[in-house]
Amino acid sequence: MQEKLFVVKIGGALIDDEELLNEFLKQFSEIKEKKILVHGGGKLATTLADKLGVEQKMINGRRITDKDTLDIVAMVYAGGINKNIVAKLQQKKCKAIGFSGADANLIKAKKREHAEIDFGFVGDIEKKSVNRKLISKLIKLKLVPVFSAITHDKKGNLFNTNADTIASVIAQALSSKYDVELLYCFDKSGVLEDVENPESVIKNISEEEFSTLKNEGKLHKGILPKLENALGAVKNNVNKVFLIKETELKNHIENHHAGTEICL
Amino acid sequence: MQEKLFVVKIGGALIDDEELLNEFLKQFSEIKEKKILVHGGGKLATTLADKLGVEQKMINGRRITDKDTLDIVAMVYAGGINKNIVAKLQQKKCKAIGFSGADANLIKAKKREHAEIDFGFVGDIEKKSVNRKLISKLIKLKLVPVFSAITHDKKGNLFNTNADTIASVIAQALSSKYDVELLYCFDKSGVLEDVENPESVIKNISEEEFSTLKNEGKLHKGILPKLENALGAVKNNVNKVFLIKETELKNHIENHHAGTEICL
Repeated sequence: MQEKLFVVKIGGALIDDEELLNEFLKQFSEIKEKKILVHGGGKLATTLADKLGVEQKMINGRRITDKDTLDIVAMVYAGGINKNIVAKLQQKKCKAIGFSGADANLIKAKKREHAEIDFGFVGDIEKKSVNRKLISKLIKLKLVPVFSAITHDKKGNLFNTNADTIASVIAQALSSKYDVELLYCFDKSGVLEDVENPESVIKNISEEEFSTLKNEGKLHKGILPKLENALGAVKNNVNKVFLIKETELKNHIENHHAGTEICL
Repeated sequence: MQEKLFVVKIGGALIDDEELLNEFLKQFSEIKEKKILVHGGGKLATTLADKLGVEQKMINGRRITDKDTLDIVAMVYAGGINKNIVAKLQQKKCKAIGFSGADANLIKAKKREHAEIDFGFVGDIEKKSVNRKLISKLIKLKLVPVFSAITHDKKGNLFNTNADTIASVIAQALSSKYDVELLYCFDKSGVLEDVENPESVIKNISEEEFSTLKNEGKLHKGILPKLENALGAVKNNVNKVFLIKETELKNHIENHHAGTEICL
């Protein structure tokens, strides 16, 4: 039997709420198994860009990361947010160690290529982008890696990379060594059948059901990429993948089910 | 014989000069022995504070790190600067891994105590503040730690800490395991007898000579704390301590002498 490893992803709304974040980090620090945390950005980067007069550029509705924006997200994600989360986890006796993908070449990305749009400093990653061996060694030292959504290309450039994707590829890469459970934590109790009804949690979504829901237009725009990353994980040997409510982390781990399970 | 370890400190002026920084990082990456880099801040934090309207508070001529200023330096030092240096070193095939003192509890500080002044989020450290065992393990994994001047108190708070002091205490802590050489790199060729004459490098300064120079008012205000940190290192078993010009790193390491050596 392989050893259990939780890869837990948290997003911006949680990070922006100090009290909720503290409660979440308490629950996270109490997980007895091996674990990794991946965090997104929150509003801070946008607020800072506004204050500094750095305009957020969009092309065809897609966000562009120009050099000024990259400088801001690198500071905010890999500096401010990451180090505050690490300090708070350390307070809770969790041996957190904060990383960007540049550190020890842990996640090497490729600049996003697109026929019409130059996304700027946006990095795409896949399973093999992850330095699986070194992450395993760090976990063996009883450390708890905390990843910000910043990667690099080993050519001296930092990149902005989707945090859901980072969580997915880390989970995939470590599945050869560990029994990995990937948890996407967000502010809903799971994927909802009816977005107006918080009780309408769909217990399981298979690849086929995902296609159906997607084609029927039943999936909220924000949940789509998260589900795609979740499906990417189960298709690449991640043992279990759930979307759960942030406040349900402890309950999910102790009672083995909460939220929506994504399966093949 | 213990294995050689270089602890190299660089400061703000170098960090602000992209071309000079790149040349320095090239020289640093070519050091064959084990090595650690410690970096200061540069103008970026001050520029950002100005733009954000965060006033720099001084009491009796001493800088105060209030919460807003701490948030800025944490972002800039541990995020922007640290990750850019790490990415550039990775490009140069150096296995850099960036840290604040909060990461893996590598440097635990105490809030500065002072009878009259509350310095705010300023952390003081000493030799025993350093997690020597874990840094040694990381070095054994062939990683090259890159430290920003941010520490923590294990109570959830980040601190601003003097980068010269960080370099000194890391060098001290690792001296039981390694033959440590501490190099303070700056924009002069060493400590100058006559600050107007760049050729007037003092080859050696002992503790006694330091006192004499200090009492005679011959030491530039900026060099004083650096020399005090350098002396603290030699008094705590660091094998060799030099102040050298940033562009002389490679020359110093290959030819065994450049700049000013600090000795007992």
